Amino acid sequence: MSAILKQRVRYAPYLKKLRTPEQCVELFKNGQYLGWSGFTGVGAPKVVPTALVDHVEKNNLQGQMGFHLFVGASAGPEENRWAQNNMILTRAPHQVGKPIAAAINDGRTKFFDKHLSMFPQDLAYGYYTKNKPNGSNLDYTIIEATAITEDGSIVPGPAVGGSPEMLSVSDKIIIEVNTKTPSFEGIHDIDLPVNPPFRQPYPHIAADTKIGRTAIPVDPEKVVAIVESTTGDIVPPNTPSDAQSQAIANHLIEFLEHEVKQGRLPPNLHPLQSGIGNIANAVVEGLASSNFKNLTVWTEVLQDSFLDFFESGSLDYATATSIRLTEEGFRKFYENWDTYSKKLCLRSQVVSNSPEIIRRLGVIAMNTPVEVDIYGHANSTNVMGSRMLNGLGGSADFLRNAKLSIMHTPSARPSKVDPTGVSCIVPMAPHVDQTEHDLDVIVTEQGLADLRGLAPRDRAQTIINNCSHPDYRAQLQDYLDRATFEATKKKCLHEPHMLKEAFAMHINFAENGTMKLKK
Amino acid sequence: MSAILKQRVRYAPYLKKLRTPEQCVELFKNGQYLGWSGFTGVGAPKVVPTALVDHVEKNNLQGQMGFHLFVGASAGPEENRWAQNNMILTRAPHQVGKPIAAAINDGRTKFFDKHLSMFPQDLAYGYYTKNKPNGSNLDYTIIEATAITEDGSIVPGPAVGGSPEMLSVSDKIIIEVNTKTPSFEGIHDIDLPVNPPFRQPYPHIAADTKIGRTAIPVDPEKVVAIVESTTGDIVPPNTPSDAQSQAIANHLIEFLEHEVKQGRLPPNLHPLQSGIGNIANAVVEGLASSNFKNLTVWTEVLQDSFLDFFESGSLDYATATSIRLTEEGFRKFYENWDTYSKKLCLRSQVVSNSPEIIRRLGVIAMNTPVEVDIYGHANSTNVMGSRMLNGLGGSADFLRNAKLSIMHTPSARPSKVDPTGVSCIVPMAPHVDQTEHDLDVIVTEQGLADLRGLAPRDRAQTIINNCSHPDYRAQLQDYLDRATFEATKKKCLHEPHMLKEAFAMHINFAENGTMKLKK
Repeated sequence: MSAILKQRVRYAPYLKKLRTPEQCVELFKNGQYLGWSGFTGVGAPKVVPTALVDHVEKNNLQGQMGFHLFVGASAGPEENRWAQNNMILTRAPHQVGKPIAAAINDGRTKFFDKHLSMFPQDLAYGYYTKNKPNGSNLDYTIIEATAITEDGSIVPGPAVGGSPEMLSVSDKIIIEVNTKTPSFEGIHDIDLPVNPPFRQPYPHIAADTKIGRTAIPVDPEKVVAIVESTTGDIVPPNTPSDAQSQAIANHLIEFLEHEVKQGRLPPNLHPLQSGIGNIANAVVEGLASSNFKNLTVWTEVLQDSFLDFFESGSLDYATATSIRLTEEGFRKFYENWDTYSKKLCLRSQVVSNSPEIIRRLGVIAMNTPVEVDIYGHANSTNVMGSRMLNGLGGSADFLRNAKLSIMHTPSARPSKVDPTGVSCIVPMAPHVDQTEHDLDVIVTEQGLADLRGLAPRDRAQTIINNCSHPDYRAQLQDYLDRATFEATKKKCLHEPHMLKEAFAMHINFAENGTMKLKK
Repeated sequence: MSAILKQRVRYAPYLKKLRTPEQCVELFKNGQYLGWSGFTGVGAPKVVPTALVDHVEKNNLQGQMGFHLFVGASAGPEENRWAQNNMILTRAPHQVGKPIAAAINDGRTKFFDKHLSMFPQDLAYGYYTKNKPNGSNLDYTIIEATAITEDGSIVPGPAVGGSPEMLSVSDKIIIEVNTKTPSFEGIHDIDLPVNPPFRQPYPHIAADTKIGRTAIPVDPEKVVAIVESTTGDIVPPNTPSDAQSQAIANHLIEFLEHEVKQGRLPPNLHPLQSGIGNIANAVVEGLASSNFKNLTVWTEVLQDSFLDFFESGSLDYATATSIRLTEEGFRKFYENWDTYSKKLCLRSQVVSNSPEIIRRLGVIAMNTPVEVDIYGHANSTNVMGSRMLNGLGGSADFLRNAKLSIMHTPSARPSKVDPTGVSCIVPMAPHVDQTEHDLDVIVTEQGLADLRGLAPRDRAQTIINNCSHPDYRAQLQDYLDRATFEATKKKCLHEPHMLKEAFAMHINFAENGTMKLKK
């Protein structure tokens, strides 16, 4: 037993349950329901899942060791190895990685995505285990901890996610104590699940409201194994901003400045939510170098760009359910722990993504879709209506409830045969995750469409004029004009569509590799 | 001045502002932004709108007197006369009636629908008046009151709706004091709008939580006219339940009983939300005659069936933002005022439809869509994707946040040429208001599909097996099978669709009057 492990595990009885990862393998049986800690690729268990997949590979047990796997959002590379070895029968609510996406899209893994704020509560209600033969909820939760308190409570690492709910409904618990990373004790604010009719209001009235619980209490009897882990999180480098994403960010910042001027936003805005990717990074960079001061962030995941945001002096406080940093980012974070731990807090995903709090605080939400249609519906998940990317995530939690719901996207993306072969503005989205009732603003590098208070046809004209790529503008206008002409005859002018042609651009893409229609 | 008016208006200075409806006509100018009280056809102003439309008709002012009109939800027959006379330039967020729907669908009225919980707050943010030349928010709010308190506060009638927000951002206020109806004083619980960053948690932890304000405070200076009204609300008779809707209700009650047995619901369930129409009536009748006791209701509108529900002894408390009763219903209600006023409370629509409270209480939400698709997306608003019916209403407020999100619909409806010409289960919804991430249960007279925790293809199979009409089952199965076959080849098996055929049933309906495809 390492000295650092002894120091981290302050509840002595757990140390009697110490196992190696390999000694945990015997606990797992085909068909079990498992919860893992983790969110957006960090804070997930590593050494136990690895030992299990090693065991499967070594003994050719593919197809004989399958699990129903639930993680707050995406786990690390371990779940991709599980997917490759057909170890994931069911998976929810969000995933990242080619192997797991492949397993879902070729039918080996049954996946469902759910609003990240709802997933843990629905799991705790027993909704996802209701067909389980033995009547219990999760068989095991495997959680990564960075410390254990004197009463056996678990201090998570860089992600809280759905761990409180999973632990509350798990028969047995396996704790991976990560001794490679410093302890994260003090940075969490843990909300415990309470079911109706006993729920109370969340007390949060600002990004920095804390309820004061820094670890997740568990019944020590449920803990069947403590495992030491020295495997770190692996986060790929951030996609840097480029001219296109900076153009998007500039439109957005200009818009926010205008809103302040009009008195619809205070000078320090409202708490910001920002997604993942190069547009999100460009927006954060833009805000950091803008005139906005005393900003706050209420979001689901913090990335490296937020460290620069803090350093710019413009950001006062940030909160999320996970902090997903690169190795370099984590190094910087640990070195300035005293500063960051006062300005930053990690919460359960039911709190970070809570509709109640998002609406109360007036959050400004910004996310990237697959595509948006001319009437303001967005597809966040299913390419061509069928192929799953990563899942819904928290996009709908934020976009439905924000004071300003913003989607940012390039106006077009390259396909294999055409540098602008995919228009991100389409006549009709073949899959809808965010409805026309949920979006206030759409912004591309071409410009910004303010949809607030517009009827559908005015929305369509504004989106085509301001946001569409010049290569597609005439084509989209032609759809709108002809649909309007047809709808005038049929007296259905509210939101004119031609169902025979609504997906012509998508079908053309499937057949010819570009959304540009031949005339 | 009638004695009863003097008695109702307890703030004397208002009586100096008494006008006839006709004397109000001069206040209105083309292009003004107006708020009306009212919700689901009750509690809206009547005599002033009638005087104005009489004036327009008499002087042939159609096209010269147009307004941007905002009402919490639908108003009464007055707005339909306005629509007929082209007096509604813009309208949000919900409407009922052939003339107003015609004006929207033939392009005379620009309509946008918005979640009813968000509409008043977005109006108060200035989102819907941001293009108004003079920079103010609403020019006038016309509100129906049933009493005025000593400090000039307004006691509404059978609807609270968006009145508190409208009054707070209105330049001038016209009050119609309805002396035909008894005073509703004491039945309201009024929440006042507070904008971020100053919002506090809603304190509601049960259907009967009250904050204690029974009237809407206004700045008396803003009140420019008091008008007496003796026009009552006109609510059409309720659509009675029939064998089909009773079959739906029976499936639903059996399901709820099962959930209680499994421990996922308490014996008295959670607060119920129920929509309008004969299925909703059948469900309420079914619950009233079931073994469930001590039930509560948290919904947006109460109808006659709830009076019977109270009388059955099963219902302890009900709350909504409007009570929409027939003349007979209102008579019964007034006669038993002492009983009902203790068991019933009307709130602002931002509270009745609050995501925060709906989720906290674990509401069981039940609504009827236009159609649902095999993967669990629902169209609540736009027939064939284009033609507006009534609007989104509160359906998405409830279905997104409920503990159990239930949609009930007949499996098929008659068309002009075929008694089952319209299938309410379709391959792909041509308009999506509720996403696959929002629905737990779909129920038709054929049976019930429990979608919780199911991946999309399993959802599809369950919906087809349990809910679809026998006339359409093979056809829907054929779509799913062939889409799955295609998706197997293309490795996009998450949610298989064939974009070329997704709307074949709708297109066939447009061409042949039935969704039954020729083979």
